[in-house]
Amino acid sequence: MGLFAEKFETLRDLYVNELRDLHSAEVQLTAALPKMAEAASSSQLKKALTTHLEQTRGHVRRLEQILNALDEKPSGKTCEAMEGLIAEGEGYIKASGDDSVRDAGLIGAAQRVEHYEIAGYGTARSLANRLGEKNAAELLQRTLEEEGDADHKLSEIAEGEVNPAAASSKAA
Amino acid sequence: MGLFAEKFETLRDLYVNELRDLHSAEVQLTAALPKMAEAASSSQLKKALTTHLEQTRGHVRRLEQILNALDEKPSGKTCEAMEGLIAEGEGYIKASGDDSVRDAGLIGAAQRVEHYEIAGYGTARSLANRLGEKNAAELLQRTLEEEGDADHKLSEIAEGEVNPAAASSKAA
Repeated sequence: MGLFAEKFETLRDLYVNELRDLHSAEVQLTAALPKMAEAASSSQLKKALTTHLEQTRGHVRRLEQILNALDEKPSGKTCEAMEGLIAEGEGYIKASGDDSVRDAGLIGAAQRVEHYEIAGYGTARSLANRLGEKNAAELLQRTLEEEGDADHKLSEIAEGEVNPAAASSKAA
Repeated sequence: MGLFAEKFETLRDLYVNELRDLHSAEVQLTAALPKMAEAASSSQLKKALTTHLEQTRGHVRRLEQILNALDEKPSGKTCEAMEGLIAEGEGYIKASGDDSVRDAGLIGAAQRVEHYEIAGYGTARSLANRLGEKNAAELLQRTLEEEGDADHKLSEIAEGEVNPAAASSKAA
């Protein structure tokens, strides 16, 4: 969303706007994930973030494929919500203190990002179905499932490894 | 997260930071929801947003109760991610065009907000459990369930009423 009021006459206008918002979000994420992976101490967490980077590049390509089929382009506008979400992640990248505690913070920030995308893809898939865009709805559903899987994987790493380690940090 | 690097020595430091972030997010939301409800055309959507405003006020009180029991205060820092999420909602409030299409956009923005909170409360509840804060974990779980219910309600309104109406907007 930009500074100026936009006009949405049809569900298709909204659908294209949502696809562009997701595209901006995913592109921002491809730049942020390598920094988060580098800052992570847990090798499991590094691996999960690196795997998700590969998936995220695929998500960008799917969105471009969908926009292309609609004869539309990504807008070049920046998704402000994702900017804020990434700023939170960067706060943990810069933070000092116990490594496992920082990993736990990075996981929390990454899960907020995943949930942003889960909500966004849920909306976009609903709109695609309503507009009879079957192929797009399938692609969006596939991405939605991958975001959900990434979120669960992060929960597993938090519960199984990172939070227990952080709970036994020196001053706990 | 502010401009300066923070220090997280213990899981408790992280927990307090997450609670403060959620507090800022919920306070911002109590200001945003009435504007979204006013902008909504669908009476079902207006009602859902107004009901959620009441719940959100309760969520603020729960977070204050939890912080108080820890002898901590809300920080006064602003949750940047929620600022971005609310800016997206404001974009739809200001947008012109078809009323049902705008309602569909408002629902999408509200669901992104709900998912932000679902991720945040999921993290905070995990940390509370790990720290043995049983009462807090229960309160956070209750809020988490209410956020999930609000998200499902919004999906129902989108699928059942708003998206079908938007799909039959004049230029669809």
